[in-house]
Formats: sequence, C-alpha cells, structure tokens
Amino acid sequence: MEKMQKPTLHTVLSPRLLDLYDLTDTIVVIIDVFRATSTIATALYNGAIQVIPVPDVETCIQRGKEIPNSVTAGERDGKVIPGLQFGNSPAEYTRDFIEGKTLVLTTTNGTKLLNMALQMGASDIITGSFPNISAVTDYLLASKKNVILGCSGWKNKVNLEDSVFAGAIASRIGEHYDILCDSTLMAQTVYENNKHDLPALAKKATHWHRLANYGLSYDLEYCVSEDVANVLCHYQDGKLVVP
Amino acid sequence: MEKMQKPTLHTVLSPRLLDLYDLTDTIVVIIDVFRATSTIATALYNGAIQVIPVPDVETCIQRGKEIPNSVTAGERDGKVIPGLQFGNSPAEYTRDFIEGKTLVLTTTNGTKLLNMALQMGASDIITGSFPNISAVTDYLLASKKNVILGCSGWKNKVNLEDSVFAGAIASRIGEHYDILCDSTLMAQTVYENNKHDLPALAKKATHWHRLANYGLSYDLEYCVSEDVANVLCHYQDGKLVVP
Repeated sequence: MEKMQKPTLHTVLSPRLLDLYDLTDTIVVIIDVFRATSTIATALYNGAIQVIPVPDVETCIQRGKEIPNSVTAGERDGKVIPGLQFGNSPAEYTRDFIEGKTLVLTTTNGTKLLNMALQMGASDIITGSFPNISAVTDYLLASKKNVILGCSGWKNKVNLEDSVFAGAIASRIGEHYDILCDSTLMAQTVYENNKHDLPALAKKATHWHRLANYGLSYDLEYCVSEDVANVLCHYQDGKLVVP
Repeated sequence: MEKMQKPTLHTVLSPRLLDLYDLTDTIVVIIDVFRATSTIATALYNGAIQVIPVPDVETCIQRGKEIPNSVTAGERDGKVIPGLQFGNSPAEYTRDFIEGKTLVLTTTNGTKLLNMALQMGASDIITGSFPNISAVTDYLLASKKNVILGCSGWKNKVNLEDSVFAGAIASRIGEHYDILCDSTLMAQTVYENNKHDLPALAKKATHWHRLANYGLSYDLEYCVSEDVANVLCHYQDGKLVVP
C-alpha cells in the first residue's frame, strides 16, 4: 500500500506575505489573538447568530442599519471607534448581551486579513484564537487539507501573540503535516518555551503595551486561555457562523 | 543628570517588510547567512580589496569586464549561474585565490535586500554573518545608533538561519537597546534555545534542504561558526570594504 502523503502546514507571519502562498484547496486560519478572533469566538460561543466582518467603519455602520437585531463594533489602533456601538473586547460579548444577535465587526488587522484571503480566492476560512483552539485543531485534522496559519500582525508587522498561537497549533497537530516552513518552526519554538506561562509572554508583546495604555489589560489573560469559548468559527457567504 | 535614551533595535524578518521601518540615521545590517553575507565576510577577511554587490547577472558580467583583477560570482536558487565564474560558497574564497582581487557578486536574496535598503535611503549599511558576528556587534555598539537587522529570507519568505542570526545579535548586545519589536523577541528566543548546537538547528531550515540537494552541505558548519572571518564589511560608494 502506498504511504498517504501528509498535507502541508505553513505559517504566514504578516499579511504582507500572504500572496507568497498558494491558497487553493487550503484551509486558511485567520489569527488575531488581541483581540478580533478571540472576540469572534466569544460572541459565537455566547449565542450570537453570526459575526459579519467588514473592512471599514462606514460599511460597519451601514450593515448595522440593514440587519435587524444587530450591533456594530470595532476598533482602530486598539481603541473604540466613534460611530460604532461597541468595542473589540471579548468581555463585552456576554450571553445576556449577544445571544440571538448579529455582530457586525471591523478591526485594524484581523478583518483586513480575512478580506485579503477572500480576494486571493481562499474558499475555506476559519478564525482561530486560544479561546477556541481545540475547535480549530479538530476541524483541521478532520479536513485533512493543507493549512495556512495566517497571522494578522500589527499593521503588517509581525507580532508575538499571533505567531505564538500559530506555534500552539503546530505543537498540537504538527505531526500530522509535512512542515517545510521556517516560520512555523520558529513560532512553535517560541510557543513551547512559554506555554507554561502564556500571560507572562503576552505581556512582552508590543501590542500588549498598546492595549495596557487603553486600560484594557483585563482582556489579556482571557485571550490566552484555551478553550474558554470553544466553537468553530467558519466563514460562509460573508458571515462567520458556528456550522 | 538626564538618563541617556538607548537607541532602538528592530528585526525585519522579510525584505517585504523593510519599508515598514524608518531607516533614517540607522545602521542596517544585511543578513544572508546561507550564504551571501558569510561569503562576503570570508572574501574580505582573506584579502579581497572589495566586494561589489550587483542586482543581476548582466550587471555582474559587465562590471567584471570593466574592473581589472576581478572575479564574477553568484547564485540563483542556490545554484551557480551560467556566465559567471564562481559560485556563492565561502569555501571558494581562500586567501590564495581572492587576495588583492575584486569580487563582483549577485545572489538571490542578500544583494537584493542591500539594494532595497539603498533605495530606501539607508546611509549606513554593513553585512552580517556568524563568521563576522563580533565585528558587527563591535561596530553597532561603538556607533550608538538605531539598528535594523535585515533578514534576506528566501524569496521574501521568512527563513530560520537569518532570523537566528538576528537573534544572536540581540542576545549579545540587546541590553544596550530599547527593543520594542516582537520579531526580535522571537528571533532571540529561537537563538537562545539552539545556540549550543547551531548546525543541528540549521539542518532544520528549509534552505538547508535546498543546499543539501546541490551537494553544498560542507558550507553549513562554516556558515554558523562565529568569528572565523571576523572583519567589518561596510558599504561605501557601491562597494563592501573593510573600513
């Protein structure tokens, strides 16, 4: 019997590098640990019907008006945007508040990367974060497809927290993939060196310093907690939903 | 007395990300461990008058014709280029061969990044590699300027060996800099985890697999050996020279 070839797994450390990779027949995992993809998982876990990622504030406000029982939310540079109702903190999206509603969301990095992947023809997109890491790995393993771990970074710069999440994925399921990707090796090394204390690592991230300046430090511990909002967030027809 | 502010240090993991950084009054270290910058250090250490980095094969051949006592060399995709006299292996540039000569060099990644930095207005450029790491750190510390560690990568993808060299620099002299750069933190972690056996780490690099396929594996150990060709390689008026 012929040996089954393993699918490949690559980590893309910055949106700027996404076009160097082939997205055909590939699952793209959009990663924006602080905080878009953590917030998406939390909203869906707590009963939001759907999360609609939009590229800009204007579209966010417009879609919010069109969709009944929706809330508009987002951030730019880590701060709430004037004109939108809510911010990008997962703590805002409790079950009491978000159940049965639609969340229309725009963020600096995560929603942009998702739109880039769409424009490049990605057909199977999920969002990933520590709060839903097991749902992500379960889906990847079951699919047996090639994987791109897409880090949103910060304004195209590489960031620590998204890279470390990619490393966590590789650490958990890497043995099932052919990994000829130096970015993945690096991310996995950094994760494995720090997995015993991810909050301490996260506090070294440059974005952490930005968030801390805005008094949002209470999100940090939550956003590096595994499986506290463990649902798959799958992109279908313009929306992220639990399939 | 006012506390002196430290200069900054950033690592740029791919040429694609270079334009996200300000190169004004900054030393840019061009890093291409396998093998351009290791070869440059070796040629200058062994008495080459100068190394002229050129962007393409045609220019390489032309400059070789113009400059007396010069040799043309380079690689594309890790292989020697038809039309050029020599390749990109540091082992080729012994003192017997290169002393007193000019080396005209074109490579896939390193010489391209150097030209990008020039086009972006960088005014203080050196090349860095393990063979001349102490010359690099001595120069950086003495200059007290901001530093960009520019990794050449592989066709714009992030690579392990250049990142690890950036990490080695940060590990040695990071305390003298303000480092608010996640790429540097990651590179330093990977370096410090593997510094006891850099050849073993290098063998995990994807570029290593490429080189090994071309029978060039004997370069590997040399290119991760510290200070075996310890001269400063400084860019001045179109040439790399020992100042």
